[in-house]
Amino acid sequence: MKVTGIIAEYNPFHNGHLHHMQMARRQSGCDYIIAVMSPDFVQRGIPAFLDKWVRARMALDAGADLVLELPIRHAAGSAEYFAKGGVSLLSSLGVVDALSFGCETGRIESLMEYARFLSKEEPEPYKALLQRFLKEGASFARARYLAWLTFSGTQDPHGLLHSPNDILAIEYLRAIFQMKSPLQPIPILRSGAGYHDLQLTPAAPRLSGLNPSGASLPEDASGVQKIAPDMAEDTHPALFSSPVPDYASAAGIRHALSLGLDVSSQMPPAAFRLLSGELSQNRYLMPSDLDLPLHLKLYEKKASLTDYLDVSEDLARRITHLLPRYTGFEQFTTLLKTKQVTRTRVQRALLHILLGMKAPSGHPDSRIPDYARVLGFRRAALPLLHEIKKHSAIPLITRLPAEKQAPHGLKEDLDAVCLWEVLVSKKTGAPVRNERQRQMIILP
Amino acid sequence: MKVTGIIAEYNPFHNGHLHHMQMARRQSGCDYIIAVMSPDFVQRGIPAFLDKWVRARMALDAGADLVLELPIRHAAGSAEYFAKGGVSLLSSLGVVDALSFGCETGRIESLMEYARFLSKEEPEPYKALLQRFLKEGASFARARYLAWLTFSGTQDPHGLLHSPNDILAIEYLRAIFQMKSPLQPIPILRSGAGYHDLQLTPAAPRLSGLNPSGASLPEDASGVQKIAPDMAEDTHPALFSSPVPDYASAAGIRHALSLGLDVSSQMPPAAFRLLSGELSQNRYLMPSDLDLPLHLKLYEKKASLTDYLDVSEDLARRITHLLPRYTGFEQFTTLLKTKQVTRTRVQRALLHILLGMKAPSGHPDSRIPDYARVLGFRRAALPLLHEIKKHSAIPLITRLPAEKQAPHGLKEDLDAVCLWEVLVSKKTGAPVRNERQRQMIILP
Repeated sequence: MKVTGIIAEYNPFHNGHLHHMQMARRQSGCDYIIAVMSPDFVQRGIPAFLDKWVRARMALDAGADLVLELPIRHAAGSAEYFAKGGVSLLSSLGVVDALSFGCETGRIESLMEYARFLSKEEPEPYKALLQRFLKEGASFARARYLAWLTFSGTQDPHGLLHSPNDILAIEYLRAIFQMKSPLQPIPILRSGAGYHDLQLTPAAPRLSGLNPSGASLPEDASGVQKIAPDMAEDTHPALFSSPVPDYASAAGIRHALSLGLDVSSQMPPAAFRLLSGELSQNRYLMPSDLDLPLHLKLYEKKASLTDYLDVSEDLARRITHLLPRYTGFEQFTTLLKTKQVTRTRVQRALLHILLGMKAPSGHPDSRIPDYARVLGFRRAALPLLHEIKKHSAIPLITRLPAEKQAPHGLKEDLDAVCLWEVLVSKKTGAPVRNERQRQMIILP
Repeated sequence: MKVTGIIAEYNPFHNGHLHHMQMARRQSGCDYIIAVMSPDFVQRGIPAFLDKWVRARMALDAGADLVLELPIRHAAGSAEYFAKGGVSLLSSLGVVDALSFGCETGRIESLMEYARFLSKEEPEPYKALLQRFLKEGASFARARYLAWLTFSGTQDPHGLLHSPNDILAIEYLRAIFQMKSPLQPIPILRSGAGYHDLQLTPAAPRLSGLNPSGASLPEDASGVQKIAPDMAEDTHPALFSSPVPDYASAAGIRHALSLGLDVSSQMPPAAFRLLSGELSQNRYLMPSDLDLPLHLKLYEKKASLTDYLDVSEDLARRITHLLPRYTGFEQFTTLLKTKQVTRTRVQRALLHILLGMKAPSGHPDSRIPDYARVLGFRRAALPLLHEIKKHSAIPLITRLPAEKQAPHGLKEDLDAVCLWEVLVSKKTGAPVRNERQRQMIILP
């Protein structure tokens, strides 16, 4: 039995994701594909646009055999922590041979070399270089990369690591090396839009009726700036400067939707139908849906801000100092971000405060997922599930345990679902859907 | 120096309030009038429509000499606790001779007799009657009144206690008797609309431009039911059945505003100008502004619900049980209320949860205000302030103390302000105004 893993957000699922899944299957020659997917909040520290159940269904429709939930602590963590969570979860299952991920450079050897370097102890001259670039004002990810280039004398003619996908690819590889994971890396060259690209094809037609909640979507998308790139820690955005992409990015699709454009050509038909159904019921969230909840939470002052995951003393000070100028989640992020502390890092920290996610003594912890929750599977994948049950080092959760028996991480997951559902309930006017009553998706 | 006190909400200030203030001055022959006013949340457990500073200014413009803030714990308490708080605060000042309040019945003797009865220990036969009426399904306030009527053989031809003003009048009198307060009761017969009346004059013209936030106001006022009577614990509403009132109630004015009607004839011109200014900036709150905050809070489960003030074990059970059907603050109140547990009681309990207001061991406490915060005064009232400083048993707060030095009640007041300001900030898009930087109003 050959099994390949994918770590993804599918926010929402688009043709690029489909292409990746098909290429992963072809290149690995696997029998099964397991997708480990972000839950109701994503790595940029914002709510997932769509419900995780809908996104899991999209992935299954597109060919995934099993969809597992990436615990919220990892899903809304730094690129490093996100990658570690996914790699660890897949490795723990005891049956996965390979990890397939997208990257924007064909220079996989350079990626491997850099990742291998990062997974080992840092030599002193490199540390000095790192400090120099940090002092010069580079973000941590960028300073680290520049230090390595200089230290190793590596050339960078192709702009390696100028794309968020490469940054994530590096982190996957690094996690694999550090954990001595058995996963075989299978990079797939992205042929579509970068994560930054917000552009669809030049003449994307307007789709009438797709934006029934006219009041909300356009309001959230008054400016392009509002839709920031996915998973970018440190990047050189070149908005709209790229050629017309073959595949739109998820951010591009969300932006197009906010303008009322037709995105049907960018998604598999089944995924598009699911998306339309959700939009027609107002069941989607935008970053601006966090405006009031975060504001309320920041004024509560129940705990010291530094108790929360990823909130440094400096950031806590800045939050307290700038709170009187708060008018919204993204506006506040803009106030808080610096050259060193990127927008996504700030957003994640704010999300941790909102979700009450604390870290032991205020530092990012190194917990790895100790359970794998099933969101759905294809019936044909039953042999895969049996194998996992035989070999997995962590429990495969197909039914939520009683609240008291739930592992700490799962409780955090359930709190996050709750927040997502309460926020979407405000938009739909319908009551909150109970996570405990929702059924795993089983595709015939 | 003769000083008369008034306990009020002024939500917003209208001609009926002006009439009451003028009558109070005339009947008492006082030199000064002190208004003790609800802060940013009112007795029905909902946000004040307007900012307390604006309402304090309205009262000063209309002739009050000094406006003090009723601490939130009393302002959002039961009629009994509200009255106790106000009476205690005024009595503690050491300079107030009289309390003037409105009532709907001219039978002041009956009110006094009933209040005196309630302020003493209950005789056994009365207790039995009370139990009987409670078992028959009457609310506590009503059962108590029926038990007294039967016990004392009193006739009730005038429908005494069928109005919320009379209920409050009873509680003022009862507090005065129980505390052996030196305040002389000065009831003023209301000549205008009852608290239930939502009607203005039959031909109230529409005021163009007064409802700039068209989106919010009409939504909140889709039905008359939504604007419930002020301060009514147990009443027999007769909506729209009364003759055209001389004075509209505050609820009537809020309702008229929600319909975009011109209310200028119902308010003193200065108050109307202040109201218009606030509306033009979207600086007002409706009960629906609590929809999301309360929903978020109820899902937080940080403390047991019975820890909060006025949340009985039965109510806590019902909240938990019905939470999955929550779609809004008022809708949830409707779900929760019973014949015995009135809408206002439920709303107050929910507000206490939202504000994190706890009671020692879950029972309503009997704390009395231990400070008097000044919101504003007329310069001509400086001798009054000096007299208070000389004679008051509690500190007169004209400047907020540092957070650590603030009495417990004042911290609760500041939390409540914070919530009101965060909610209004969401509506206006402007940052929160800092309570510590706001200046007392001093009228020349």
